[in-house]
Amino acid sequence: MKIKVIMPITSDIFNEEILEEVKFYASETTEVGVTSLDYGPASVESEYDEALCVPNFLEKAKEAEEEGYDGVISDCFGDPGVKPAREILDIPVVGACESSMLFASSLAKSFSVVTVLPNVVPMIENISKTLGVNGNLASVRYVNIPVLEVHDKDRLKNGLYEEMIKAIEQDGAHALVLGCTGFMGVAAELQQRLKQNGYEVPVIDPVFAATKLLESLIAMGVKQSRLTYMTPPSKERIKA
Amino acid sequence: MKIKVIMPITSDIFNEEILEEVKFYASETTEVGVTSLDYGPASVESEYDEALCVPNFLEKAKEAEEEGYDGVISDCFGDPGVKPAREILDIPVVGACESSMLFASSLAKSFSVVTVLPNVVPMIENISKTLGVNGNLASVRYVNIPVLEVHDKDRLKNGLYEEMIKAIEQDGAHALVLGCTGFMGVAAELQQRLKQNGYEVPVIDPVFAATKLLESLIAMGVKQSRLTYMTPPSKERIKA
Amino acid sequence: MKIKVIMPITSDIFNEEILEEVKFYASETTEVGVTSLDYGPASVESEYDEALCVPNFLEKAKEAEEEGYDGVISDCFGDPGVKPAREILDIPVVGACESSMLFASSLAKSFSVVTVLPNVVPMIENISKTLGVNGNLASVRYVNIPVLEVHDKDRLKNGLYEEMIKAIEQDGAHALVLGCTGFMGVAAELQQRLKQNGYEVPVIDPVFAATKLLESLIAMGVKQSRLTYMTPPSKERIKA
Amino acid sequence: MKIKVIMPITSDIFNEEILEEVKFYASETTEVGVTSLDYGPASVESEYDEALCVPNFLEKAKEAEEEGYDGVISDCFGDPGVKPAREILDIPVVGACESSMLFASSLAKSFSVVTVLPNVVPMIENISKTLGVNGNLASVRYVNIPVLEVHDKDRLKNGLYEEMIKAIEQDGAHALVLGCTGFMGVAAELQQRLKQNGYEVPVIDPVFAATKLLESLIAMGVKQSRLTYMTPPSKERIKA
Amino acid sequence: MKIKVIMPITSDIFNEEILEEVKFYASETTEVGVTSLDYGPASVESEYDEALCVPNFLEKAKEAEEEGYDGVISDCFGDPGVKPAREILDIPVVGACESSMLFASSLAKSFSVVTVLPNVVPMIENISKTLGVNGNLASVRYVNIPVLEVHDKDRLKNGLYEEMIKAIEQDGAHALVLGCTGFMGVAAELQQRLKQNGYEVPVIDPVFAATKLLESLIAMGVKQSRLTYMTPPSKERIKA
Amino acid sequence: MKIKVIMPITSDIFNEEILEEVKFYASETTEVGVTSLDYGPASVESEYDEALCVPNFLEKAKEAEEEGYDGVISDCFGDPGVKPAREILDIPVVGACESSMLFASSLAKSFSVVTVLPNVVPMIENISKTLGVNGNLASVRYVNIPVLEVHDKDRLKNGLYEEMIKAIEQDGAHALVLGCTGFMGVAAELQQRLKQNGYEVPVIDPVFAATKLLESLIAMGVKQSRLTYMTPPSKERIKA
Repeated sequence: MKIKVIMPITSDIFNEEILEEVKFYASETTEVGVTSLDYGPASVESEYDEALCVPNFLEKAKEAEEEGYDGVISDCFGDPGVKPAREILDIPVVGACESSMLFASSLAKSFSVVTVLPNVVPMIENISKTLGVNGNLASVRYVNIPVLEVHDKDRLKNGLYEEMIKAIEQDGAHALVLGCTGFMGVAAELQQRLKQNGYEVPVIDPVFAATKLLESLIAMGVKQSRLTYMTPPSKERIKA
Repeated sequence: MKIKVIMPITSDIFNEEILEEVKFYASETTEVGVTSLDYGPASVESEYDEALCVPNFLEKAKEAEEEGYDGVISDCFGDPGVKPAREILDIPVVGACESSMLFASSLAKSFSVVTVLPNVVPMIENISKTLGVNGNLASVRYVNIPVLEVHDKDRLKNGLYEEMIKAIEQDGAHALVLGCTGFMGVAAELQQRLKQNGYEVPVIDPVFAATKLLESLIAMGVKQSRLTYMTPPSKERIKA
Repeated sequence: MKIKVIMPITSDIFNEEILEEVKFYASETTEVGVTSLDYGPASVESEYDEALCVPNFLEKAKEAEEEGYDGVISDCFGDPGVKPAREILDIPVVGACESSMLFASSLAKSFSVVTVLPNVVPMIENISKTLGVNGNLASVRYVNIPVLEVHDKDRLKNGLYEEMIKAIEQDGAHALVLGCTGFMGVAAELQQRLKQNGYEVPVIDPVFAATKLLESLIAMGVKQSRLTYMTPPSKERIKA
Repeated sequence: MKIKVIMPITSDIFNEEILEEVKFYASETTEVGVTSLDYGPASVESEYDEALCVPNFLEKAKEAEEEGYDGVISDCFGDPGVKPAREILDIPVVGACESSMLFASSLAKSFSVVTVLPNVVPMIENISKTLGVNGNLASVRYVNIPVLEVHDKDRLKNGLYEEMIKAIEQDGAHALVLGCTGFMGVAAELQQRLKQNGYEVPVIDPVFAATKLLESLIAMGVKQSRLTYMTPPSKERIKA
Repeated sequence: MKIKVIMPITSDIFNEEILEEVKFYASETTEVGVTSLDYGPASVESEYDEALCVPNFLEKAKEAEEEGYDGVISDCFGDPGVKPAREILDIPVVGACESSMLFASSLAKSFSVVTVLPNVVPMIENISKTLGVNGNLASVRYVNIPVLEVHDKDRLKNGLYEEMIKAIEQDGAHALVLGCTGFMGVAAELQQRLKQNGYEVPVIDPVFAATKLLESLIAMGVKQSRLTYMTPPSKERIKA
Repeated sequence: MKIKVIMPITSDIFNEEILEEVKFYASETTEVGVTSLDYGPASVESEYDEALCVPNFLEKAKEAEEEGYDGVISDCFGDPGVKPAREILDIPVVGACESSMLFASSLAKSFSVVTVLPNVVPMIENISKTLGVNGNLASVRYVNIPVLEVHDKDRLKNGLYEEMIKAIEQDGAHALVLGCTGFMGVAAELQQRLKQNGYEVPVIDPVFAATKLLESLIAMGVKQSRLTYMTPPSKERIKA
């Protein structure tokens, strides 16, 4: 099967890293493609950024389907464009946030998300509400590091670890979700560190979760319901 | 006070009619401006349309603030652009759907929405969930008339009346909300017709509701919370 | 339009102040009347007080309708008499608590109420449950000042400010509601003080909210649903 | 132990019948007293009636405590006066509706109430919301017989049976609650009739439920929490 | 009436104590029988223990019915075997946890449970969810004392008192439930101690609650609904 | 990776068929083992059957871990033994029902389950409540065919199709879940038949879902949280 990862940001410097990562997560037989946007925001850290990235995301998603991909991942924790893409595509579309929340719900009675900035907390809470798992969401915490600075892995991991401990001890989280698709390659280490400190809880990497959910849906031969995501009526739509 | 109504569609043929209507709804001392989009969809009838209308909506909203308006209405029942606009504007921003649901909740234990097409039903349900009044939403019904055909008022009113009766008798609705901002000038007549047939229930016009909510917020000197709608970090955002 | 504010307490010493305040909140063209009770409690600070104030409140509400008023405000944050008055009146009836909670829900993902005494906390929570917005209620806090002592504005404002900060920092409130109709004339100042300290959140004055909601409903030509608030059957009702 | 049943209506013609009934329900060693009101409505069929019956109910409840009773039942399915009485009494106070809903929740995953008139449906739903069992309430149905006409037992039983069948088959009810304290002496027969027709479901008599709940609470040495039902501050309260 | 208390553990050393206790709780005319298991766990402190105790519990419950008992209590706070026993018995079956939660809901807007070990917290929360009162559950706390060590009453009472204070002050509990059926004979004293320290809140003993609920159901002539708890189809079931 | 499918019934006649099926669902590199029980019920169609199958299921699950399996599937839609097995195993344990509900939630705003008999409807609803997705569950319907008769595939498929249509048209389901692990090999055909009749909705096979969820969890290196599923304290546990 072939899956396409669309980074809804206008920079291709991460493309290679993402490609390697998703290939590592995916089954051996899965072919992975990665793309980013031609126009839109440099990163997604607000409803505003999300609004600006979606139009080009939808074009890229449509292209992926035309290129023969079997499924699409919106590679950002705000799940930008996932709902409209489900309307216009006949292949499954998944988002990193929804995927993580579903896997976390299968492993623990409650989970917390640790994300980048306070700006995106309400967006993440709203996704839990429309997905219907908000009763399992213990809290959304943040490390206060902008998306484009998460490459400082030590600062990131320490920030995440600190907030995870608070999520467990103060908010009642029994599982943890990394709340940014830029938090690559740190889940396993954080899970290990928590375990060494007495908390044997799963730490979900959102890109890993989205990859496995998408592969599962494709394997099962299912995609989004056309009753929830109906094909949009045809009409004139003027481009910018 | 000055309020700006932004129709998130690329057609200005309704602008004059909307202007007259909102002036009629607004207090005498309120100044009203109306605009539509330069690019985007001809009408909003899906998540996809909504995604495409938001970028230009946000530009128009920003312009309105710069022109000295005191508040902005997103004149479409899917409330497109309301959340991101709240992030980037320092004046209150309201949507027709949220406004109607709040007024309906003040008048009855439950309400139904009657909208245009089945495509937008999940969007409206999702708004009720993120607004937190989904427990009051009895149902979302539709007349199966596309937005751009609602000018046939007799067909529209009959379709709405029929669905309203079903909403009351089958779904337990105690109040009714017109689920499209294009359903202009029919609320009072439908409320009257329902009353004559034994159902003394309020019928909410969404543009009327948005106008009164916005005027109220401006009068009260309040606007969206900066904790829920934080100012987006500055960054490069490439235009289409 | 003409609106009647009924203070459900047996003292007319605040009538003049309330009259001035509501006139200030209302549109210029709105005529305002204020009355208090002939019998009942000196203030409302419990379910017990509420029970005792309602019979005369209902008589006053009926009188207001007969005098030609277009709508009635129950001027107490426990919304005493609002539901039964909606049954017996053909003009809209609003309460301060319900009105505030709806406006707050339009501005933020969550809100807290700061009220007078712990006694009324469950009453306020119950209103949020029957109104259907309890999911948005972050907390109900109190300043521990009895209703009849709130005239000490400095003590009041400091108490409110302190609890508001706790509501934001500890309970996750993103908007604030003053939980007593006696907290007159302090909302704007508190909103300003919070902003100066980094919290740009709306502070809702409940009498202002009730006034604007009532004016809006009257303007829209809607009133309480007769399906939720049916006319009581006629029968003998013996007066005390 | 001694329990007092207060009928919140101004007629003593049912007192003897109620006395016999509650004695039959109660343990042999329980002493039962019954009283009705001096002023208030002839029956309770609306929020309005409920508002008018509560002041004298509270006086009667206070008297009962002073007379040495160990607990009080508000003998009406709208539970009038229960919350304020809990504030002013140091003995447990129970209502017929709350009691029935709790027993029903112990026997089935869902229950329906069958009451007198549509007027009281929202009141009963609101009780389920403030009690916290609204998720178990399948529906509230009504026989459309006024309280003072329920003495025609055949009409009553047939009406109840018909609605109970609809509650089971259409609304998913797995238990049934008689929604009026005037529906005396019919629960067992209806339960039997349902069983003979293939539905082996419990039918709860609300006065029976209130009696057993109250006896249980007294036996257990518990009463309403003073944190939820605080003692009202002392103040002037002018009588009508 | 005759009620049977089944301790779902393999030790009969507590049988005499339990018998005395339940006799003390029950009405004078109630006959009480107590039994424990032949095989299963020594105590119930996990889902695992619960799974192991249920098969023999069901045999004992069936025996009780055959011996002419009118109702059965599952004498463990995890309510083991209650649901399957309701399917195979024609007499009412109650659990200690469900019973306590229903009584607590009748006395306060919220309650906390204080149990033995952290292991059983999710089980208790799940019972509140399937019973439908999870909205009233403020928290589940634990004293960290294994079931078989609760006989040290001083350690137990101090541990319970400490957690009760935290439940009230930190979690918003307005009533308290002892979360283990081994916490015998301490409820009244703890209620008294809390009152002396300013918290006049009910403390529910779970065995007392189960006894009174069961007696009430038997007296009312009701038992579990056959729509929720259908008789299992007959089939081969191989014993271990 | 190696996964073990445990059929919680005492018959090995389906083992070969299940083995073939799960091998077909699983990735090529996944090794599959299947076992059934030595003692317990012939099929699981009630809480009672579930209670009887769990003890041996847990032994089989423990054995699987000792044999080096990487994860375990409880191959029955009631998810018997899943929670206690999670406590005693250090490899992930999934159930067919939970898995299906999570995948369905990723594809549609609502889903219905179609199962075998009315007996198991409350069990399935309870799983949705403890999993936290009950808000997405439109209904649980049944074909009224006992588990051991589902081999008549034509009767089964017609029964399922009929109920699926009702779930969509009457209950608002937007996705469908086969509610019995014995419904093998029919999902794709039913999905196709629904599509041909205008309903393009996903149909989830529960064994397929459990297989893909388990493979995903193993690949991601996560398992059940030790905070939700703590290791049971050691103690004497007497075997039957």
